[in-house]
Amino acid sequence: MLNLIPIGYVRRNEGASRHEPVNIVIDKDYSEGLRGLEEFSHLFIIYYMHLSSLKSLTRECNGKNIGIFSTRSPNRPNPIGISVVELLEIKENTLTVKGINAYNGTPVLDIKPYDDWDSINNPKIPSWYRSCQKYF
Amino acid sequence: MLNLIPIGYVRRNEGASRHEPVNIVIDKDYSEGLRGLEEFSHLFIIYYMHLSSLKSLTRECNGKNIGIFSTRSPNRPNPIGISVVELLEIKENTLTVKGINAYNGTPVLDIKPYDDWDSINNPKIPSWYRSCQKYF
Repeated sequence: MLNLIPIGYVRRNEGASRHEPVNIVIDKDYSEGLRGLEEFSHLFIIYYMHLSSLKSLTRECNGKNIGIFSTRSPNRPNPIGISVVELLEIKENTLTVKGINAYNGTPVLDIKPYDDWDSINNPKIPSWYRSCQKYF
Repeated sequence: MLNLIPIGYVRRNEGASRHEPVNIVIDKDYSEGLRGLEEFSHLFIIYYMHLSSLKSLTRECNGKNIGIFSTRSPNRPNPIGISVVELLEIKENTLTVKGINAYNGTPVLDIKPYDDWDSINNPKIPSWYRSCQKYF
């Protein structure tokens, strides 16, 4: 068993859409770790999807049987979420970001700067992936 | 405290460089979850850097004091690593991938498909980031 601790929490209005800004409030104990972050345009937010649970290792969509690791479903063996976000503002220990679709109160595990090597041009994505996303 | 379980392990020759292919061996219990993954060109591998530990919330480089969350150092409050990898091959429960710099035996937590929205064109990265990376 591997143990992790929350370094902060997602704070958003319930019902806010994926495209609305969200606050990431980092515990004051970790404030120093944020130094320099305001100079990046994009970040990875890594979080623990505490309301999710594994239901099945596969999903059905359009008659196709798809493995859970081929989806971004929150219901996976380890409920870890990652989102690439645009950083809008940092005020003390609160980051305002765009591009994360996690519930209010979701524990945050880590923040990492987005680097050039994270950017892939034209990744190959199968056609069923788009049409099946709502079933994931 | 949040608990996670290994779904597999990184298997590589000791001393292999970042650019050499690495095997990700997923436990047979989770094999079904890999279905469809071979149709993606790129994946996120999420892993637990079991040999790392938090040393300090900041780093010094060129007289600048930088927070740990502004680096990709493995020594962070939660030792979670993420790598964007190119998928070369899947044979049964073994993925061969390129682009991950984790030690042999590193527990793997999750695999996710790389999606268009993970790809950011020209992210803003501060100049000190490149020159300081070896000190992180």
